[in-house]
Amino acid sequence: MLDRTYINAQEALKRILDTLDLTIIQAETIDIEDSYGRILAEDIYSPEDLPGFDRSTVDGYALISEDTFGAKETSPAYLQVKGDILMGVEVNIEITRGECLRVPTGGMLPSGADAVIMFEHTQRVKEDMIEVCKSLSKYENVILHDEDIKKGELVLPKGRPLRSQEVGALAGLGITRLKVYKRPTVSIISTGDEIVPATSPAKKGQVRDINSFTLDGLIRQCGAITIKQGIFMDEYEPLKAVFTKALSESDLVLISGGTSAGIKDMTARIINETGQPGVLFHGVSIKPGKPLIGGIVNHKPVFGLPGHPAAIFVSFDTFISPVLKRLSGIAVEGPPVPTLKATIAKSLSSTAGREDHIRVSLSRDTDGRYIATPILGKSGLIRTLIKADGIVVIEAHKLGMDAGQEVDVRLF
Amino acid sequence: MLDRTYINAQEALKRILDTLDLTIIQAETIDIEDSYGRILAEDIYSPEDLPGFDRSTVDGYALISEDTFGAKETSPAYLQVKGDILMGVEVNIEITRGECLRVPTGGMLPSGADAVIMFEHTQRVKEDMIEVCKSLSKYENVILHDEDIKKGELVLPKGRPLRSQEVGALAGLGITRLKVYKRPTVSIISTGDEIVPATSPAKKGQVRDINSFTLDGLIRQCGAITIKQGIFMDEYEPLKAVFTKALSESDLVLISGGTSAGIKDMTARIINETGQPGVLFHGVSIKPGKPLIGGIVNHKPVFGLPGHPAAIFVSFDTFISPVLKRLSGIAVEGPPVPTLKATIAKSLSSTAGREDHIRVSLSRDTDGRYIATPILGKSGLIRTLIKADGIVVIEAHKLGMDAGQEVDVRLF
Repeated sequence: MLDRTYINAQEALKRILDTLDLTIIQAETIDIEDSYGRILAEDIYSPEDLPGFDRSTVDGYALISEDTFGAKETSPAYLQVKGDILMGVEVNIEITRGECLRVPTGGMLPSGADAVIMFEHTQRVKEDMIEVCKSLSKYENVILHDEDIKKGELVLPKGRPLRSQEVGALAGLGITRLKVYKRPTVSIISTGDEIVPATSPAKKGQVRDINSFTLDGLIRQCGAITIKQGIFMDEYEPLKAVFTKALSESDLVLISGGTSAGIKDMTARIINETGQPGVLFHGVSIKPGKPLIGGIVNHKPVFGLPGHPAAIFVSFDTFISPVLKRLSGIAVEGPPVPTLKATIAKSLSSTAGREDHIRVSLSRDTDGRYIATPILGKSGLIRTLIKADGIVVIEAHKLGMDAGQEVDVRLF
Repeated sequence: MLDRTYINAQEALKRILDTLDLTIIQAETIDIEDSYGRILAEDIYSPEDLPGFDRSTVDGYALISEDTFGAKETSPAYLQVKGDILMGVEVNIEITRGECLRVPTGGMLPSGADAVIMFEHTQRVKEDMIEVCKSLSKYENVILHDEDIKKGELVLPKGRPLRSQEVGALAGLGITRLKVYKRPTVSIISTGDEIVPATSPAKKGQVRDINSFTLDGLIRQCGAITIKQGIFMDEYEPLKAVFTKALSESDLVLISGGTSAGIKDMTARIINETGQPGVLFHGVSIKPGKPLIGGIVNHKPVFGLPGHPAAIFVSFDTFISPVLKRLSGIAVEGPPVPTLKATIAKSLSSTAGREDHIRVSLSRDTDGRYIATPILGKSGLIRTLIKADGIVVIEAHKLGMDAGQEVDVRLF
């Protein structure tokens, strides 16, 4: 299924996403302390009401609101103070008309009470008597026992990413073990006869393995786990063997490197010969990143990545990151990653039909507005990425942009 | 040094930042694999040139550019092919005028060569002879040996956060051990007679500890390490003891909870009695989060946090996160966190002089534009945070905003 037509980025991504098999995503049960950033694999229904009892939201007196109806400075209501409510203790006193209890913020309301008046709206007239100068409505300054979360309510649905506040809510409900989706695992196979490990000296003609380190960082940012399969020569048999091993050990396989035409064809051949449906696209109308290969082998997505560091970034951002999101079990698409508005410092031209991803550095003009300056330099240079604060995309249907135009910068 | 005036948020933060002692930040040496997201504690100078040899950026023939000057379809230049350059191998052949070598992308240029012509711009006329139909400039299709990074050059300065690409560059230079700043540690002391652990049943009058879980997540997002000191009753001696212990064990101390006036005063007293300068502000013109206490004790920042979950978020975002960034050793302020443009669904009023942080949920209208809907509900409810996609800030000098107005949403 080798298709040599260069397709556009949206169509390429769609081919992969439409062919993904999400039924193979597995779940695991973990402790709440480990759940930050994980994706829920079960619907969470509340086992109880939260807070579980009517609580005061102020420091004051718990009372029956009817007793205050019509109360004002000139004709206050008088209530008998029957005692103090302690924090954290069940209140067993009941109050009746004309009575009240002193209650701290967060304290439990006694039976009978339906509102709390703040200290500052009362006057002590006797040891056990207050004057109330304000009319309260029912439930004023009170959180009802089921006002935050009701027993039996769906609190968090399956597929929901757990942010700090979701974890807080789980703690509040006493749910300290939960089912989440396993983190996707991603194999990186580094190829190239010239590539040596980062720990090795690089002789003339050799370069150290940069891409498996940048990829590892990008993979971790997606909440996935990296398996480095090692560095392999551009030889068919060992490459096919490690590709088969990687497929069995991980949820997604990246073959990195292979800048020459020969190795790209070998990668495509190995993908096609290992399983179905094989290569779904070979070459995308995107710059940098044109030589990208994408496919699915036995339900698992695989990518043959271009060798240039900048192309790695754009390929990851545009293709691998969305695929990893799906594989992580996220059910809902959240809002997009926000961008920073800036003025582009330089006119740029682009080829129609090709999506251009321009690395930019940011600075500010005298008025504090952001200026995005395109970073010149070949996409093979890692320095262009170190200097970059983000990316500006020229969409496929556009022919470029003019200096001074407002652009959206997606920050790294 | 107790100051009961409610100050504005910028002034409150400035008081803490100006009093911070950043000389106490320590460094540690780690492996490159553990360096993602860490902050460099040393200047990195390049130990060598990168790539270290002149490389071809295309598949083609390495040649002497002068040999192609004036070459075109109608009067091609003829070059003798002296052999093949292999990837990853030092080239010891030298070429002279009229000669060339076949070279793959990434291959090393032979001595004498200064440009590479792509295969598609040549014709093979004999077994060892090509026809060149294009004039090449010097260094065309070549990355020079020091074009990416020069030996002795400052590659990454001290205080720089390490993103995926910086780690890639370190790998490329063979730097696999490096000095980074230690992650800041943050103690959380949970207070409140009504608070029980998340693992306990909550009896009437009790609530489980939500805030230490939301705080832990926020602390981790800042790259810091949480130390949970446990849950303490509102009693002076044990609270002072754990505060002193927390100060000695961590770089920043948070006292969470204590919604009642009594415990807030006790927190301020303990901060003032434990060391200098003590409380720097007590109460901020911000909503939610007004009762925040901030101070420095023996060079370490400490905060007394309001008890409401929403107030915790705003306090963290506005005060603790910027302080943690400084403590992490970041030297440069990067661009701000980008916001999403949305239309506010509802008019909101605000008190002059108070900064209001409004929780909003996002949806899209029929044209795909984002609508930010303010989430109603008391700030004590964790559900308001679960429903929220982000925050809209009404600045202190504004009196509110009108429905339909464009707002900036800072996503959680």
